[in-house]
Amino acid sequence: METDKYIEENSKLMEQPKGVRDFLPEDKLARDYIINTLVREFKKYGYNPLETPALELLSVATSKGGTEPGTDTYEEIYKLTDQGKRKLVLRYELTFQLARVIAMNPQIPRPFKRYQIGQVWRDGPTKVGRYKEFTQCDVDVVGSSSMLADAEILAMYNEIFKEFNLQVDVQVSNRKFLEGLLKSAGISKAKEAMISIDKLEKFGRDGVLNDARERGLDEDSMIKALDLLEQEGTNNQLIKRYEELLKDPLAIEGLKELKDLFNYAVKLGAKFRFNPSLARGLTYYTGPVFEVFLKSKKITSSLCGGGRWDNMIGEFAGSKDRIPAVGTTFGLDTIYDALKAEGQLKSKKTSTDVFIIPIGEVKDEAVQILSELRGAGIKADIDLMNRSPTKNLNFADSLGIPYVLFVGKLELAKKKVKLRDMKSGKEKIITIKEVIKQLLQ
Amino acid sequence: METDKYIEENSKLMEQPKGVRDFLPEDKLARDYIINTLVREFKKYGYNPLETPALELLSVATSKGGTEPGTDTYEEIYKLTDQGKRKLVLRYELTFQLARVIAMNPQIPRPFKRYQIGQVWRDGPTKVGRYKEFTQCDVDVVGSSSMLADAEILAMYNEIFKEFNLQVDVQVSNRKFLEGLLKSAGISKAKEAMISIDKLEKFGRDGVLNDARERGLDEDSMIKALDLLEQEGTNNQLIKRYEELLKDPLAIEGLKELKDLFNYAVKLGAKFRFNPSLARGLTYYTGPVFEVFLKSKKITSSLCGGGRWDNMIGEFAGSKDRIPAVGTTFGLDTIYDALKAEGQLKSKKTSTDVFIIPIGEVKDEAVQILSELRGAGIKADIDLMNRSPTKNLNFADSLGIPYVLFVGKLELAKKKVKLRDMKSGKEKIITIKEVIKQLLQ
Repeated sequence: METDKYIEENSKLMEQPKGVRDFLPEDKLARDYIINTLVREFKKYGYNPLETPALELLSVATSKGGTEPGTDTYEEIYKLTDQGKRKLVLRYELTFQLARVIAMNPQIPRPFKRYQIGQVWRDGPTKVGRYKEFTQCDVDVVGSSSMLADAEILAMYNEIFKEFNLQVDVQVSNRKFLEGLLKSAGISKAKEAMISIDKLEKFGRDGVLNDARERGLDEDSMIKALDLLEQEGTNNQLIKRYEELLKDPLAIEGLKELKDLFNYAVKLGAKFRFNPSLARGLTYYTGPVFEVFLKSKKITSSLCGGGRWDNMIGEFAGSKDRIPAVGTTFGLDTIYDALKAEGQLKSKKTSTDVFIIPIGEVKDEAVQILSELRGAGIKADIDLMNRSPTKNLNFADSLGIPYVLFVGKLELAKKKVKLRDMKSGKEKIITIKEVIKQLLQ
Repeated sequence: METDKYIEENSKLMEQPKGVRDFLPEDKLARDYIINTLVREFKKYGYNPLETPALELLSVATSKGGTEPGTDTYEEIYKLTDQGKRKLVLRYELTFQLARVIAMNPQIPRPFKRYQIGQVWRDGPTKVGRYKEFTQCDVDVVGSSSMLADAEILAMYNEIFKEFNLQVDVQVSNRKFLEGLLKSAGISKAKEAMISIDKLEKFGRDGVLNDARERGLDEDSMIKALDLLEQEGTNNQLIKRYEELLKDPLAIEGLKELKDLFNYAVKLGAKFRFNPSLARGLTYYTGPVFEVFLKSKKITSSLCGGGRWDNMIGEFAGSKDRIPAVGTTFGLDTIYDALKAEGQLKSKKTSTDVFIIPIGEVKDEAVQILSELRGAGIKADIDLMNRSPTKNLNFADSLGIPYVLFVGKLELAKKKVKLRDMKSGKEKIITIKEVIKQLLQ
């Protein structure tokens, strides 16, 4: 391939902001494959698409708890001022926008099952796998308290990762259960303790105790909590065990939710594991929480996670009534990394099926054949550079186009063309009709 | 549908920035239909997807001509500063990003046929049909000077609007031809005159002359130019006529390009009209220009437009070599409006095919049926609110879900369910297998 040396020099001067990325066709096609698979499954589960803008008023975007000036989240929000001196932000997540849409559109029938795929922006420190602009794929049900809504999410996890051919570990717990358990162990600062507890599977007992010490949590109570958390057994055995061990009403309520959830999830064919210590970072969860990891642990970040958040929308909307909700978010970047790590990413540089190479003065005929192929629904392309057959063949090869069609005078006289299978190198002289038949297979 | 009166009150307090929009499922499904149709056609024509970030460095985004401080474009760019005090912008178009990608990635094989669909932001005055955040659908070929590349765009217009079932008027002209014609008429300020000339079909001869007068253009020369422009005939007759009328070398070159373009476009089955006065606003066009209008004129804005821009990438990349390019942009909002105006928008509130309503204590069985339907690839949903059958029926109806499946004890005993066609109101008691067969039709 000829490159332009001026461009080559200049390319070193060109810069992008830190933490943002271009996706060239090879990566973009792979990302689109992930997104299309997700959307197909979301729709099968009854979710419908929503689109919200990137720009929000600063006042609305920060009206939710945890986004006040001084907090990490607030500092990481990109802020800007428009020509009318209004203070705006770039959205840093999709959840508060869902809450705003619900608040502004009381006419939307409930349950409102929506998915949204969109960019979000966070001006935080960049490191490997952490970007300032990234895509979130969110699914939520607003308006239902039924554990069937939560169970559908577990079932969807299973189907989606089966589609991706990835072996995953779907973990489930419940915030009410966890908070009740921590209270039973004598811990008052449950939210703080949960952050330590959440690290149990990753860092072990000592890791949790070290973290708890730094947070100033009472060690004896933490040891009691860890003893309670480290039970062994199947999902149902664990439920039974905790029903015997815990008397705290909140814990009992959490266990009842989990029993309901497990019952529905099993009926929906979902595979999952009750991990009592799973807490999830976000403060707004109120019931079941979920997180999905790659079984091989080749990627250790979670592929997706979610939970029930029954309070936030009502609070956001300034309503005294609770507006229950449950949802999950899929990490596009992590799923991409997982597919790559497991060799499940069939990467392609183009979606083009066939590249036409005219040999000699047959451009007009070649263009007509191009038109015929596209008319039949085939993704077809043609030489636009007046290159030699060899250079064209190299070009088609560099893009990984599976077939090349040579159009030459000799074959045309017999109303035929030469189709080359680029993988095997096999060529055959056939009619356009036969070409179409083969390529549509 | 019960609504929450607190929310109803609060919804009046909630605000969005001016000029940005939420798209609820009904609108989003329609927009996705448009985008999916475009993408399918783009791929058939050999274009591959590119994704670039919303954030760019101010210095890079404004390094192109016409975006200096003081210009309208510059003022309309949203500017922001990150935590590291770097000056950033939100992209205001996708074209300069394509130029940047080319400059930063000299290894990309050419021709580079890419499409990109993404949001852009402009802090300009809002009016009907003009937004501060909107979606651009761009298609460009970088690296080819062949008129076949331009012809492919005309062919694609035809196919896309056939898909949309919209009758359109595809107009074509050429900047070299126009500039040469204006020079022949004695006009020196060709760029300025083109802005007036571009309005000929819309405002007529007097409109153009008035506009030209305000711009301080010489009236006699403008009349001469208008006389030259107002020729009648078929595309080929017009070419011949101008070959006789014009001797200016630039005009001759433009006519040669048009002849080549028309030849290829006809071979590709494209229908189009040579409108000599078509100029298009953007200053960076260098050859053929295109614009597509709704034939019925129910929408007067153009649905898409484009042209050849052979100089910009090289200039942007700081290269002495020209890097030819030709492309077009599709207006998502205008196409949406056109489809609506022509009654071609099949609007849906959901993509769900069937809604399951359990009658009595059959939740577990209903959930299993739900799982079976989804397993067969059917987009299925179920009551998540424990509502009465009547309320569930109303809910399914409010979303326009085409089928409802009643699961009741009586039918279950016979291993059957009741399927209701919501349009005709017809019901039949059949097996799940039969339900699947019918819904997959």
